[in-house]
Amino acid sequence: MKVCGRDYRTIWPFEDGRSVAIIDQTRLPHRFETITLTTLDDAFRAIRDMRVRGAPLIGATGAYGLCLALTDDASDSTIENACNRLLSSRPTAVNLRWALQRLREALSPLPLAERSAAAWRFAAQLCDEDSATNEAIGEHGLPLIREIWRRTGRAVRILTHCNAGWLATVDWGTALAPIYKAQAAGIPLHVWVDETRPRNQGAALTAWELKQQNIPHQIICDNAGGHLMQHGEVDLCIVGSDRTTANGDVCNKIGTYLKALAAADNGVPFYVALPGSTIDWTLDNGFDIPIENRDAREVTHVQGVTATGRPDEVRICPEGSEALNPAFDVTPAALVTGLITERGVCAASREALTELFQR
Amino acid sequence: MKVCGRDYRTIWPFEDGRSVAIIDQTRLPHRFETITLTTLDDAFRAIRDMRVRGAPLIGATGAYGLCLALTDDASDSTIENACNRLLSSRPTAVNLRWALQRLREALSPLPLAERSAAAWRFAAQLCDEDSATNEAIGEHGLPLIREIWRRTGRAVRILTHCNAGWLATVDWGTALAPIYKAQAAGIPLHVWVDETRPRNQGAALTAWELKQQNIPHQIICDNAGGHLMQHGEVDLCIVGSDRTTANGDVCNKIGTYLKALAAADNGVPFYVALPGSTIDWTLDNGFDIPIENRDAREVTHVQGVTATGRPDEVRICPEGSEALNPAFDVTPAALVTGLITERGVCAASREALTELFQR
Repeated sequence: MKVCGRDYRTIWPFEDGRSVAIIDQTRLPHRFETITLTTLDDAFRAIRDMRVRGAPLIGATGAYGLCLALTDDASDSTIENACNRLLSSRPTAVNLRWALQRLREALSPLPLAERSAAAWRFAAQLCDEDSATNEAIGEHGLPLIREIWRRTGRAVRILTHCNAGWLATVDWGTALAPIYKAQAAGIPLHVWVDETRPRNQGAALTAWELKQQNIPHQIICDNAGGHLMQHGEVDLCIVGSDRTTANGDVCNKIGTYLKALAAADNGVPFYVALPGSTIDWTLDNGFDIPIENRDAREVTHVQGVTATGRPDEVRICPEGSEALNPAFDVTPAALVTGLITERGVCAASREALTELFQR
Repeated sequence: MKVCGRDYRTIWPFEDGRSVAIIDQTRLPHRFETITLTTLDDAFRAIRDMRVRGAPLIGATGAYGLCLALTDDASDSTIENACNRLLSSRPTAVNLRWALQRLREALSPLPLAERSAAAWRFAAQLCDEDSATNEAIGEHGLPLIREIWRRTGRAVRILTHCNAGWLATVDWGTALAPIYKAQAAGIPLHVWVDETRPRNQGAALTAWELKQQNIPHQIICDNAGGHLMQHGEVDLCIVGSDRTTANGDVCNKIGTYLKALAAADNGVPFYVALPGSTIDWTLDNGFDIPIENRDAREVTHVQGVTATGRPDEVRICPEGSEALNPAFDVTPAALVTGLITERGVCAASREALTELFQR
């Protein structure tokens, strides 16, 4: 997608075949900076320090991290050590494990001398696939937006939560892909951007993406979406998913469930955009997903920039106050109007998901 | 209530009969400072600059502001000018108008020489009444908490939104009054404090109040309450009300509606604590209440203190991003388990409210 009018992905290899560039997402939205990764440790730190985030992008960064590790030595033990090190960067990242496993299986049958070049090819292929998957999600979501435009004849007002945009993937994003496709199709849009406390990925990243793409939007507090829906100000909700269970329950950033409740209460369609890779076929109930409690400091302290543009954080509560910080919640399938996947839109049910992905 | 172990109200007259003290709430929770008001203009600025906030406390400050204006001249024109000036400090504050009207009606039949002393007596009486009203709300809410304790035998977990504590009133508060009464009754408690974006009155003021009172609590993001209710971590919700329509619809701080939806979805009792003075008998539908959109800067910038304890604010979004900031929302009566008032607990319905307040 565009940054200052120029096309970018979130990660790309240099032509020297020994280095990779990423966008430093810890600096966004205040500064746009890229970082060059040249070693396994560079990739490890980029993931651990959340300079890259979003499941698909973490997977892609892990894949390139393995490439960087194999530049001088592509032995089985180097592969194994590199994978273990990368996996320890964000232990719960499912896509990271999946991407590394895939590369490993592709490389191990090959002669040592061919492995490095093959790794770079596979990593590039993985990125291309992620981009294509998300673009397909965009194409399948587009008719939902177009239909509202045809019916109302005015800007389609879409509410989204957190950042499920291109920054969370290699390109296009998931929840935002249909929005980018709608813009390309000439459909007027207005996006309500949930700020998404505690880490404010909506206010920081989604707002930045939409601004770069010149898509009209306004940031709202997470508290405001229900009120807007009550007053007919939201035509459609589209959110992403960190994990989707086989029955269609959706585990996503904390607060998603509250918006789904408000959507149901006000007859607003509530869609979840996700690649098939986030479906967990081993679980048939979202409430079996363990929900991590993150650092309380994310709640008690807020990061941003001061009036002079200097990064800083402020404490918003009494010194020593305790906080609880659950990172995700589960939206029951019954509250989900439909799932937008790379294979099409389907109901949030085992039958529909099976029909689409396992036929 | 207690501050550092000492009893305080939010406003009190000095014995000199010429000055009034308030707690400077713009400094909380980071510093506890009191301010002495000696002139009408002092009172005007205290309200306008939100050093006092909360409808009942604004009313009380207005009443004392009128006292300060009459020290040297208690003529009809001085009263009229003072009231007009005070009313312009927060034009939409219903309690301010009500308190000033009440004082004016009491003073105008009196001889000039008696008016000043009478004004101080009336203002003190108004404050005592507010405190007694809120204490009665606490007493009526207490059995709801005690019943849960008897049933479960463990700490009662109560979720509240925004600050409807003693800082918003003269003393006791509304939503927090039953909690303070429960503590006094020896009932173990754990309060979930919604941070309440955009102004964070929960994280700043409610957390500070509870800390001063030694009531166990944790701050949570506004996004988290639904998740906690899904997991059985909330026994009861109690929130305040800015205005309650005759049919029981509740207009309160933005985000209240989302918590009411989650409570209903999870079978968690959802109570609203309010003095009868916030009932608007002229409206029979909460959606007839106009909702003000406040400054977008409250969304895009977050206030707090830096690591060195210096007050500062940080911008959390791209420079120039637009935001929308509706201040209140309406929770339909159907989502409200009951109203806790100074006259008892009743259903959120015209019949029940009429029975309680207009019999």
